[in-house]
Formats: sequence, C-alpha cells, structure tokens
Amino acid sequence: MSVNALSERLVARLVESAARLSVDISRTADGTVIADAGVAAPGGVEAGLLIARICMGGLGRVARRMSGDADPLWPTLIEVHTSNPVLACLGSQYAGWSLSATKEQTGGKKFFSLGSGPARALAAKEPLFGELGYRDRHDSGALVMEVDRLPPQVVIDKVVRDCGLAPERLTIAVTPTHSVAGTVQVVARVVEVALHKTHVLGVDLHEIVEGSGTAPLPPPAPDGIQAMGRTNDAILYGGRVHLTVKHDEVARRLAAELPSSNARDYGRPFADIFTSFNYDFYQIDPALFAPAEVWVSSLESGATWHGGRVDGALLQAQWGSKP
Amino acid sequence: MSVNALSERLVARLVESAARLSVDISRTADGTVIADAGVAAPGGVEAGLLIARICMGGLGRVARRMSGDADPLWPTLIEVHTSNPVLACLGSQYAGWSLSATKEQTGGKKFFSLGSGPARALAAKEPLFGELGYRDRHDSGALVMEVDRLPPQVVIDKVVRDCGLAPERLTIAVTPTHSVAGTVQVVARVVEVALHKTHVLGVDLHEIVEGSGTAPLPPPAPDGIQAMGRTNDAILYGGRVHLTVKHDEVARRLAAELPSSNARDYGRPFADIFTSFNYDFYQIDPALFAPAEVWVSSLESGATWHGGRVDGALLQAQWGSKP
Amino acid sequence: MSVNALSERLVARLVESAARLSVDISRTADGTVIADAGVAAPGGVEAGLLIARICMGGLGRVARRMSGDADPLWPTLIEVHTSNPVLACLGSQYAGWSLSATKEQTGGKKFFSLGSGPARALAAKEPLFGELGYRDRHDSGALVMEVDRLPPQVVIDKVVRDCGLAPERLTIAVTPTHSVAGTVQVVARVVEVALHKTHVLGVDLHEIVEGSGTAPLPPPAPDGIQAMGRTNDAILYGGRVHLTVKHDEVARRLAAELPSSNARDYGRPFADIFTSFNYDFYQIDPALFAPAEVWVSSLESGATWHGGRVDGALLQAQWGSKP
Repeated sequence: MSVNALSERLVARLVESAARLSVDISRTADGTVIADAGVAAPGGVEAGLLIARICMGGLGRVARRMSGDADPLWPTLIEVHTSNPVLACLGSQYAGWSLSATKEQTGGKKFFSLGSGPARALAAKEPLFGELGYRDRHDSGALVMEVDRLPPQVVIDKVVRDCGLAPERLTIAVTPTHSVAGTVQVVARVVEVALHKTHVLGVDLHEIVEGSGTAPLPPPAPDGIQAMGRTNDAILYGGRVHLTVKHDEVARRLAAELPSSNARDYGRPFADIFTSFNYDFYQIDPALFAPAEVWVSSLESGATWHGGRVDGALLQAQWGSKP
Repeated sequence: MSVNALSERLVARLVESAARLSVDISRTADGTVIADAGVAAPGGVEAGLLIARICMGGLGRVARRMSGDADPLWPTLIEVHTSNPVLACLGSQYAGWSLSATKEQTGGKKFFSLGSGPARALAAKEPLFGELGYRDRHDSGALVMEVDRLPPQVVIDKVVRDCGLAPERLTIAVTPTHSVAGTVQVVARVVEVALHKTHVLGVDLHEIVEGSGTAPLPPPAPDGIQAMGRTNDAILYGGRVHLTVKHDEVARRLAAELPSSNARDYGRPFADIFTSFNYDFYQIDPALFAPAEVWVSSLESGATWHGGRVDGALLQAQWGSKP
Repeated sequence: MSVNALSERLVARLVESAARLSVDISRTADGTVIADAGVAAPGGVEAGLLIARICMGGLGRVARRMSGDADPLWPTLIEVHTSNPVLACLGSQYAGWSLSATKEQTGGKKFFSLGSGPARALAAKEPLFGELGYRDRHDSGALVMEVDRLPPQVVIDKVVRDCGLAPERLTIAVTPTHSVAGTVQVVARVVEVALHKTHVLGVDLHEIVEGSGTAPLPPPAPDGIQAMGRTNDAILYGGRVHLTVKHDEVARRLAAELPSSNARDYGRPFADIFTSFNYDFYQIDPALFAPAEVWVSSLESGATWHGGRVDGALLQAQWGSKP
C-alpha cells in the first residue's frame, strides 16, 4: 500500500479546488507545487480537512461536525476515523521529519519545521519507519509543514532528494499554527497523538487495528504560543479516542495509561505549561501528549476499557468569551 | 469562482439519479430541465439534501444526522458547513429573486416565487449582488423554487433571458413547502438565515469567514401555512449556528444581536405569528428570522461569544404526537 | 431501479481498495469474485461500512460516528439513512435467501447461510419479492454472506444459476459474525430490522417513505453465540430508528408496537435468551427483533409518535470492562 498513491487524488483536488478552499497554489522554478493554506492565503476549515486527509495518506476520514448535545461544551468538533491507524497516523500523519535550514542557507531567517504527511514514508529518514517495517515507493509525494512562511528552496531540495522525486511531483502544503487550516489539521491529529503515546509506552504497534477520535475545534489564537496551546488543549483536555486492539492486556493497560491525566503537568492550559518551562518542549512530561479520554476495545475477549475524562471547564475557560 | 460551475456536477447527479431520488425530470419545449421534487413526484430527504447543496452553489456540505444525544429533543437533524459562507448563502442560497406572472401571463392562476440558488448570480437582478461585488458568468445554471406547481413558461423565459443562458442549459428544481424535499432544503438554510440577518444588522459581510449550523428536521405539515411555520420554527427555535468572523467587536455584537430571541415576536410558533398578522410577512419583526442559538468566534483574539438558546419545549409541543 | 446496478460502483471499490480495507479478493475457477472480509483476511470497520452500503443496494448511507454526547453510553455508533427504505432494506439488505449445502455436496462440513444484498433481487426466490412487486434485472450482482468460511462451489453455482448471471459477474462478500466487518454490517441493519418488523406486523410497506437509524458499534465477541448476541443487543437495546410513513394511524401503531420492549423476552441479553431456548431461533418471540426506540412521523398530519427507550445500562453491563 502506498500512502502517496492513496493521497494523490486528494492532492489533485487541493490544487483544482484552490479558489474554493482559499488556498494559493504556486510552483517553484523547479516545478514543486506549494499550497499556501494560511501564510498569505486565508485558507479555512475545508482546506484544513482536505490537508488532514492528505496528511493521513488517504487512509482516514476527517470531518467537521456540529455537536448534537443539548448543552454542548463546544459547538464544533473534528471527527477522525481510520481502519489503518498505524500506517495513517505514524507512517504518514505524524510530524516527525526534522527539516531545517541555517540563516546562511536561507539567506534570511533560519527555518525549522517538523514535516508530516505521506512524503515522510518516501524518505524514511526517521527510525520509526524501521520499527513500522514500512517504506513507500511512488513517483509523487505530499508533505505538510506547520510553519508560518513558505519553506526555503534548500529545504525543498532536500525533500525532493530524500524522497527520490522529480521536483514537479512533490506538493508541499503549508499551514501555520495560527491559521484556521493549521488548527484543523493539528486537531485532526487526535488519533495520531494516541498512537504516538502508545508507541512511547512501548506497546507493539501491530496491536492497534482501528482508531476513531473526536476533539473540539477552537478558532486559532493570533499569538503563536497561544495557538499551539489551543490545538494541544483541544486534544489533551477535549480529545476522545476509541481504539481497537488485539489483546485484553494491551487494552487494559492503554485505557489506564493513555489519557493525558497520567502526566505530571496535567491540569493547566498547555500554553502555561510550555511558558513555565521556558518554551523547552523537552522539559514537558511526554505523557501529557495524549487524548483526555479513551475507550480501548479488545478483540481477544470483546471487552472495552475506559479511562480519562474530558475537561470541558478548562476548555471553556480558555476559549470562551473575554469578560 | 463560479457557483454555477461548482454546482454543475450536482445538477447532473440530480438528473441521473432521479429514480433513486423519487424526482421527476422533464424538459420544456425549449429544453429547459425541470426537476420536480414534490409536486407530482414524491421527492424525499435525499433529493432535498442534493438540492440544498445545489442551492449553495456547490460551496456547502449538507447532511442528515441522527441526534447522538441520550435524550434527544428531536431524532433527526440537518447539518450544514461552509468555508465560503457569504458566497454560498447570500450569493447563491438566499431566496431573493422575485419571479412572478399574472393570470393573463400564465393563462391560469397567478404565479409567485422567490427564486434561490446559483442562477440568481447569473442574472444578478438583486441589489445584494452589488453589495457582494459578485456576478457569475457560466454557460449553465440552476435555480430552486419553493412553489407547489411547476413554473409557467413566461417565468422560465424570463429566467433564461436574465441569466443569458441557452434554454436547455437551465435546470429548475421545484420543491413545495409542504414536501419532504422542500422541508429539507429550507431547514438547510440555517446558516443562510444567520448570514442574512448579519447583513440586515449592517455588518460588513467580509467579516464572515466560516459558517456551520444545525437544525432539527420535522416532517412537513400538509397545510401550507403550517408547513412554512415548521421550517421557520426549526431554525428560529431549534437552529444553532457557529460563525467565525474577523474582529472581536463583530463577534460580540453578533452573539448578542443575532439570536431570534431578540425579536419582539419571539416565543410563539411561527404559524401563529404569521396568522396573527393576517399573513403579512412585512408586519413580522425581521429580527425574528435568525437561528435560536449562536456561537461567534473571532480571529482577532481567538475568543468566542455565545448567545441565544434552543427552545426544545416549543418544538416538541408543535411537532410531537397529537393527543 | 436496479439495486445491483446502483451498487456496482461500490463493488468495484471493494475490489480496488482491498489492500486498504484489509480484504482478500480471490476468484473461483469460474471467475466469481470472493471478497473475504473476516475469514482469513482481517477486514475492519471501513470494509464493513462499504459492504453494508453494497448490501443496501447502493440506496443507503452508512457511516461510523463518535458520539457527541458529554457522557456517552458508548463511544462509537453506526448511522444509517435511506430515502428508499423498503427497496434498500427488504429488497436488498434483508438476510432472507436461504442457501445451504449438505456434507455430501461440500465434501466436508455442511453449509448454511442466509444470503443478503442485491443479488437476492435477481433470484427473487423469496415470497417477499412478490409482496414487494420488485425483481431486479442486471448483468452483475453482489451477495453478502454472514458465515465463518468461504461458500462451497455448489452454493456459488446455485446463486449464479438462480440470479441468471455469468459466474464472473457475481461478487460474494463474506463477513463472519465474529469479525469486525461482520459486526458493522449487522449493526447497520438497524433500519432493516424496523422495516422487517413493520412487515411482520402486517403494515402495508408502501406506507414507509423514509428511514434513519443509529446503533452503538461494539467490538465483536470471539465466541459465535456471544458475537451474535452483541449485534442483536446493539439493535434491540441500543438501536434508534426514525421512520416517516404516509398515515397517522400507521405512525401511531408503529410507535407503540415496533420497539423491542413489546416482546415477551425483552430485558435480557440476546445471547442469554438464545441459549435459554436451546439455540432455537423459532422459540424467540419474533417481536423482539426490533429497535429499542422509535420515532414515526406521518405525512398525513405531520405529527410524530415516539415509543420505546434505549437501555444503555444493559449494553454497558454486557460490553464494558471485565472486572
């Protein structure tokens, strides 16, 4: 299965529907397609949903929903489903490819991005691909970058080279953290965050056979730290995930250990935590990066375990109206 | 962007899937396509959903949903999403094109309809298009008419002429108020109603960047006034809308002023209000035409304001079982 | 309308997307396509959803949803909608075609299956088709079998012959009861179960014009009886259906008589009931096979009647975590 082949039709739609999606399409001198969904172009929720589907390598369903609740915590939700959770989330969607350029290389500001999306599986630069036993081969590829400017040519050249692509067969979608599309595509990582923590916990990834999740969709915050805080809070305090695994022991353990409430830093807005650690990600307890509430079903016995709890009060205090 | 081009594929599906949708397709002597979704043909919910998407110029998602609530106010809902709310709702979906014919012209009963859908933007007869700064150019078009009989030839001729279309390139979908498809396509106006009131309130339409909404879907009432009352009640007392705007001041104001509860006549079923004013629309407080409950998010600060409230008791009293 | 023609595109997708859906596609010596979605192949929820849509003859929408409830009874639901409920559910989806083979015929274990899906309407072997006044004519067909092994050639030959198909134009999807795809496609029968009981109650099927339903999706149980119990419990104790009918008298009657709570055996898990009757289906009160909760709207007056109630406690006791 090729995550780049499976998402090719979605990439074509992104380009063809650029006007409707408020996305700007440009091409570098070499022909690489750049889809700007929030830097100079406004982008929007529909752009974010399509980019999230591309980011999952065509192996996930992603939709915006109104809450059907009589008295909803939050009116709008993102919902994600996949029957290929490991390949969709870790083989494609996870933002794991470190791509940077120095001031000298860019001729301006230094550049840093964690690339996500199916093109990662062409380059397979991360040790994770060895663990997954997966590497994609395809003549086109798509990468998503959560950055607030278009990538410099030196980074594009590296991606093209590492992916073994003709330059014009690479598409890069750019979604700033503080953009609407960026918020959507990060909140759509609610199942991926659960998969990544499953991996961090040392659970065999072959255990995971189905994944569904939902998280509230806030508007972006204009400030970068606050914007990052919001998408994290959406998942850490508002995210719900239902996984299906093969064995009871794994299900029981994940229901207990997956929820974000296991983390030392749990209970405060993410932006506060991040600020209190002087913007050093590596000081944050990695156990925090997880959904708030999980159900884990096991095919062994058919039982389902439940853990964690959504904290609607924290979200409403953060996102609600200013006094 | 052409709302007629974007909806062309959906119009083709309406024609091709007519049997499945219980819609009758006929052609006038000149070749204009008439899709009857509730006059002689039964139509249905699926027909109504597709016509609602056509009516939004291909710029909206429209779906029927079962409520997920443990104790739902109403079992079935219509859900609408758009990342192009102004063009989808006001440039296309709004029923703003007055189309009438005298008894002499029809050779029978006089005819009146407020045309909606993308063909409005080809004719651009309404001052609203000047304010939107939008006019469509395309070689095909689709119009929706909420009437209980097929339009007379004199009206079709006027539409063809004003839209600058070849007669055979125009499709008119007819959905009576008291039909299932008609009920669906009117309830699917929940976001449009919010946009229209935003416009009435004098808010700059460029402010609105995203729109989502939901409203309960009742069965139609057999009586015309009651049927109109139901679709209005679905929105005025059961409609929920989440808008995203550019500025805090606009968001704060809309959350306070948009909900239907601001209107003098709020609190009684629409059919009662309409009857009490002797069926004179223009005596009804225009502030009533609005969703019951709104959330308005602002991109300026990322804050969200909330106003109004769904009145489930009124809806259940109106729509529930007869004693 | 041909349910086999309408589902042909979905059958093609099942074959083309087999890798993504974890389905194994094989061909018999005669060319009949066998889609294994849970015997040797793992299958999954996405495979089950697509097979459920095929099973409804392309006339239904079937989706997996996360509950939006603040404190959900169950995290994942199946949702079904159709504007052609009689043809989709009884003309196609109902498992009514008895297909068996003796030990002598199979050269091994005897085989029994109740075939479902659009190919039933080509063979039209069941008296039900006379009552429906429907028989399909098409040059391809699809059948769904809820069995735990691939069908023997003698059964395939019978299906090909009775359907009047070239062997290579028949596709058979196999979904064991204890598989994930099997669980999905059975839970997706929530509206069909309501239609079948409507028929059992002697109500004229022309009355039913719209159908929507939802039911919780449990993981399969590994044991066959328990697995069958779960899919039944999902509908009998967790299923909700909203029908639209033509007349008030029918709506009033169905709201009262449809819910499973009318049955003598109501209140115990299905596997217990089945076991208590020594695995003899025909001793179970047929009134039990029905959704837990129904709304029935009437086009005659526009009124809606409501009956029955979801029993979340029973489901959670059955499906929740083992102590």
